[in-house]
Amino acid sequence: MTDEQQLTAAGNEISASFLAAKELSDKTAAQLEKNPSEFTMLTGDRPTGRLHLGHFFGSLKGRVELQNKGVKTNVIIADYQVITDRDSTENMQDNVLNLVLDYMAAGIDPEKTMIFTHSAVPAANQLMLPFLSLVTEAELHRNPTVKSEMESSGHALTGLLLTYPVHQACDILFCKANVVPIGKDNLPHVEITRTIARRFNERYAKNNPVFPEPAAILSDAPEIPGLDGRKMSKSYGNSIMLGATAEETAKLIKKSPTDSERMITFDPVNRPQVSALLTTAGLVTGRDPREIAEEIGNGGGGALKAYVTESVNEFLAPHRERRAELAKDMDTIRDILHEGNKRANDIANQTLDEVREAMGMVY
Amino acid sequence: MTDEQQLTAAGNEISASFLAAKELSDKTAAQLEKNPSEFTMLTGDRPTGRLHLGHFFGSLKGRVELQNKGVKTNVIIADYQVITDRDSTENMQDNVLNLVLDYMAAGIDPEKTMIFTHSAVPAANQLMLPFLSLVTEAELHRNPTVKSEMESSGHALTGLLLTYPVHQACDILFCKANVVPIGKDNLPHVEITRTIARRFNERYAKNNPVFPEPAAILSDAPEIPGLDGRKMSKSYGNSIMLGATAEETAKLIKKSPTDSERMITFDPVNRPQVSALLTTAGLVTGRDPREIAEEIGNGGGGALKAYVTESVNEFLAPHRERRAELAKDMDTIRDILHEGNKRANDIANQTLDEVREAMGMVY
Repeated sequence: MTDEQQLTAAGNEISASFLAAKELSDKTAAQLEKNPSEFTMLTGDRPTGRLHLGHFFGSLKGRVELQNKGVKTNVIIADYQVITDRDSTENMQDNVLNLVLDYMAAGIDPEKTMIFTHSAVPAANQLMLPFLSLVTEAELHRNPTVKSEMESSGHALTGLLLTYPVHQACDILFCKANVVPIGKDNLPHVEITRTIARRFNERYAKNNPVFPEPAAILSDAPEIPGLDGRKMSKSYGNSIMLGATAEETAKLIKKSPTDSERMITFDPVNRPQVSALLTTAGLVTGRDPREIAEEIGNGGGGALKAYVTESVNEFLAPHRERRAELAKDMDTIRDILHEGNKRANDIANQTLDEVREAMGMVY
Repeated sequence: MTDEQQLTAAGNEISASFLAAKELSDKTAAQLEKNPSEFTMLTGDRPTGRLHLGHFFGSLKGRVELQNKGVKTNVIIADYQVITDRDSTENMQDNVLNLVLDYMAAGIDPEKTMIFTHSAVPAANQLMLPFLSLVTEAELHRNPTVKSEMESSGHALTGLLLTYPVHQACDILFCKANVVPIGKDNLPHVEITRTIARRFNERYAKNNPVFPEPAAILSDAPEIPGLDGRKMSKSYGNSIMLGATAEETAKLIKKSPTDSERMITFDPVNRPQVSALLTTAGLVTGRDPREIAEEIGNGGGGALKAYVTESVNEFLAPHRERRAELAKDMDTIRDILHEGNKRANDIANQTLDEVREAMGMVY
């Protein structure tokens, strides 16, 4: 093959594997609609800061829907993932407790959803050892997400970042999750989790499989741009925090850049900043951004920002009210986490016992 | 630098670091003689088969001496290490229980020495996650022992073998061992453990270090050859098993190769097989192999083998008697392991709590 043919072949292979994943995702989503109680879902967040509007539409909303459908929902606060590419755990406690506040305010019900921290579940983390024996170094290296995260961190590749898909496999498999909602960038993680589950079962549990092979459900939530049209990022200061006050939100929107054209139109390619504001308003109002643009017409950036501020603050008001109410009693928030951690430990201990049994490590 | 200069420089660096390790080893051994109760030792075995005479002189004997001096002694049965380079855990249970039998028969006292299995201590294994964040992939790759084990296994490098020095660091540090008796091939493992302890303390526990930086004590036990003069190895069938019967031992020695020279002399370079038999007899009788050779003189291989058989069987008789006695009550052997595992869990949970506290992961 020429280089060009090889590249094309590689491209075809990638899109073929993406299509297969998409097909499995659609099939799983359909089955989940029919029999939600047969599904166990795992998802989570790195506690590196506060959640913003992107998280609300990109993940929180979907989790609440799955929870309320009757799927067994599990949310991991992945505190150890913070140190895959950082040398510090500062503000960890504060970040973790604020995640729980946003979960609860968004409608996650700890009676239905197990909320727990990565560092609190030793038996789940022990799965690292048998699971690491099921993958080769070469396979760990092939993971494109690990590579891109390493590059963007500007750090040398740590052992923890290199083995990060294996921790994720532990997180997913200790609670025997069979469905994982993700964006398509994270497909390789779910793929390696499926490989690990399959190899474990083949090698140690042929007649009585211990692990399911979880299916990814690909998110269909649109990518939500930051207020300035770039990707939402803490370092750009372009995200609307769920827990910010209405005043802070107004200030942030006020200083977000627009362009000199007075007439407001929805044109993401040529007018990314104006369009990002329209997209944001569209999301929180459920309206078409084009319709909002037409309504504002010649009102200019000022009128647009006024509309965005009002609609965002109106949309977030109930969330923020619940959040503030919950924050008055942080002991209860801690108790919720302790209860989730206890449940996670019970499940992890049970799974680890099955793993030891399958591997003949019962003495 | 030319290639040659570079090689010389690398050689100098290696011998400089070996000399530094030897110096630390001697210093530690001297301190240990004076204040044994200030030392905590960790060592262990992979449960891949039975222990042989090489293990007796190379490690068991030294462990019993440290234990009886008053050092806090810990022995890990590293069951997860079996799968660093193997696809199967067959006979695991049998191998583990037989290790405990040999430990006890050799004089290891479970009241003084904590005997436990790797797979039974989740909180120790969880240390993998923070510890993996403290080393880079490049550092994992530089470990010469990992490379040579990978090559001799004939397998692709698994994630578990690549991260094997980090598990060893978990094993050593969870019980805060400050002394690790090893052969010089394992120096790089202790070196990375020291690095991990130092980095953890610097990053998370500057004012109140959580981990000691353990010192290696280099073994001065001579390398004991197999009966045929080659390295002792299960696949060569050239090792005298501690738990074999006197008859099995006699048979094994009988079929071990010698040479056609009738006069027995100790000459390891030119007569490796005859000399291996003499070395074995010398070890178990405490006599100089040259003296034994002279005594046998013109008696030939037959007389030599008769002498080796008698002296080995005499030496091992009390060990084998205790072993057989202990094997009558395997429930007690299991209880000893359960008790050791319980103690190991108590210690590991305590250490993990300190680690969480230092990292701000207490919620």
